[in-house]
Amino acid sequence: MQAAEYIGNKSFRIVEGKQVKPQADEVRLDVGFVGICGTDMHIYHGVMDQRVNPPHTIGHEISGVVAELGSNVTNLKVGDRVVVRPLDYCGDCPACNAGHSHVCHNLKFMGIDSVGAFQNSWTVKARTIHKLPDNVTLEQGALIEPLSVACHDISRSRLKAGEKAVVIGGGPIGQLVALVAKSVGADVLISEVNNERRKFSARFDIETINPLEQDLQEYVSKWSDGKGADVVFEVSGVQPAVEAMTQIAAVRGRICMVAIHSQKPPVDLFQFFWRELELVGARVYEDADFEMAIDLVASGKIDLEPFITSVSELADISSAFASMDNNPTGMKALVSCQIK
Amino acid sequence: MQAAEYIGNKSFRIVEGKQVKPQADEVRLDVGFVGICGTDMHIYHGVMDQRVNPPHTIGHEISGVVAELGSNVTNLKVGDRVVVRPLDYCGDCPACNAGHSHVCHNLKFMGIDSVGAFQNSWTVKARTIHKLPDNVTLEQGALIEPLSVACHDISRSRLKAGEKAVVIGGGPIGQLVALVAKSVGADVLISEVNNERRKFSARFDIETINPLEQDLQEYVSKWSDGKGADVVFEVSGVQPAVEAMTQIAAVRGRICMVAIHSQKPPVDLFQFFWRELELVGARVYEDADFEMAIDLVASGKIDLEPFITSVSELADISSAFASMDNNPTGMKALVSCQIK
Repeated sequence: MQAAEYIGNKSFRIVEGKQVKPQADEVRLDVGFVGICGTDMHIYHGVMDQRVNPPHTIGHEISGVVAELGSNVTNLKVGDRVVVRPLDYCGDCPACNAGHSHVCHNLKFMGIDSVGAFQNSWTVKARTIHKLPDNVTLEQGALIEPLSVACHDISRSRLKAGEKAVVIGGGPIGQLVALVAKSVGADVLISEVNNERRKFSARFDIETINPLEQDLQEYVSKWSDGKGADVVFEVSGVQPAVEAMTQIAAVRGRICMVAIHSQKPPVDLFQFFWRELELVGARVYEDADFEMAIDLVASGKIDLEPFITSVSELADISSAFASMDNNPTGMKALVSCQIK
Repeated sequence: MQAAEYIGNKSFRIVEGKQVKPQADEVRLDVGFVGICGTDMHIYHGVMDQRVNPPHTIGHEISGVVAELGSNVTNLKVGDRVVVRPLDYCGDCPACNAGHSHVCHNLKFMGIDSVGAFQNSWTVKARTIHKLPDNVTLEQGALIEPLSVACHDISRSRLKAGEKAVVIGGGPIGQLVALVAKSVGADVLISEVNNERRKFSARFDIETINPLEQDLQEYVSKWSDGKGADVVFEVSGVQPAVEAMTQIAAVRGRICMVAIHSQKPPVDLFQFFWRELELVGARVYEDADFEMAIDLVASGKIDLEPFITSVSELADISSAFASMDNNPTGMKALVSCQIK
């Protein structure tokens, strides 16, 4: 079998890998499709070399088929079509003990902190597996992980039907957040500077604004009859968004922090006091978010097909990454890891 | 009757006032005691002159006795001992319509945006009144308003029995927040640099730390067995507190923003994402917070007497303010507005 290894400096090599026999609580998967995540692009750019320690097989947005079962695994069978919730938690820290294992103090993110899915065969703990219904394809399955991120964001924000939500940033996660927000019955507006991304939203009848051309605060005020946004999702990671988020939120509005701000930007804390705003962080996903994501696709409420920008073969992983590099119009590149 | 008027530049004058006959939905109070609030000190320093437009009678931490009833007021009677929730809301903005009239878009804060209580007689809307039980004195009554602020903070933070709460800042509001936190069964730690304020906390058996002498993050980590604080109350308004608040909060910890940050300080938004923190703003109080505050005093769960640093006569209001100016050891100065 073959495996792709990230070897540093925007480069991969294909190596001959070895199937890993599952331990008692593990399963071995024949990998189907693996999506390229924004985090994978960060790794590709070399900024996470210290954490991933190349050469290293990355990849965590995965679908596959159960190929081999560990001796204790009774809830799965060979041939099951599945996706993986790529979180390896310790089960024994204060966060795990409080029921928040997805933000475990010692969390290993599979495909970053341990070996990932860009290979023909991947062996994982059975507890990370979610089954796919028959009407969800393996291609769609590779997008369940990012869709689960969006489901988690909606859950953390407590967004309800009839509320008004503004999503700042229309990349893949922002678009998925907007779709999940719409699926729960919210009115959704995406703020995004890129024309192609705004056109992408239009396919789903989601309203957009270019904040460089129109005043976002004024627009949201009119759009909400002077109330402001019930929920703001900050998915962009840029300073103007941090300024906007406190301006456009309603009294008691919730701001969901999805983006990763590696700097410490100035934040208008006065507005948190004055209008009793809430800021709520959201990281990865929980079990229920994966189940919600699978349901949304299986029920036809969310169509993931338009998100699939390209499908490449494992041997072509380098060009698949290169094609997504600084490509704001691409949404999701998949790599087929199936043995032909 | 007499009234004190703030005339700008740290100065008051006593003028001959006029009792205001209550309209149909109003009551006229014989004022009992009025506390000097931090906001009153800001006004005294002249930084809010544009908002208060001197000469102006300020004062909003008040107890009194009902002296005269408007024609529609049926739930009160002359002689009732009462306190005032000094919020005048419009009842018709998005915040009021959503049930959050205490953060009304057009809120008038009585005693700042309209005439206040530093006078013998004050006429207010009956809907602002809360009755005092027989065993709560008028002196204690003047502290119900700041205690209600603390009750509101606890409510917004969703603090529960058994949780660990850190209060950053041990001024009057911080001390009251700590006492209310203790009253709901939380373990409480106050971080405060001033020795006298830490001694004040010791009267109530509340643990304190001087963050200039001990590492707060390390201390909280040990204190909480590595978990971090379930709730952090930021009551100080200083930059080191903004840094500390994200460091000491547990995974999914709630940070309650009580302080007024007029600048936009750098905030570690990454930690909100990484540990799924929450920031929740808290401003003034709601009806239920006043009722909770009165109950806490009437039941003996909170003893407000140690908070009363001094009681002055209305004629001496200037020296009462002067004595609190840059006085970190004073907690609450009361002004008696009773006609002798």
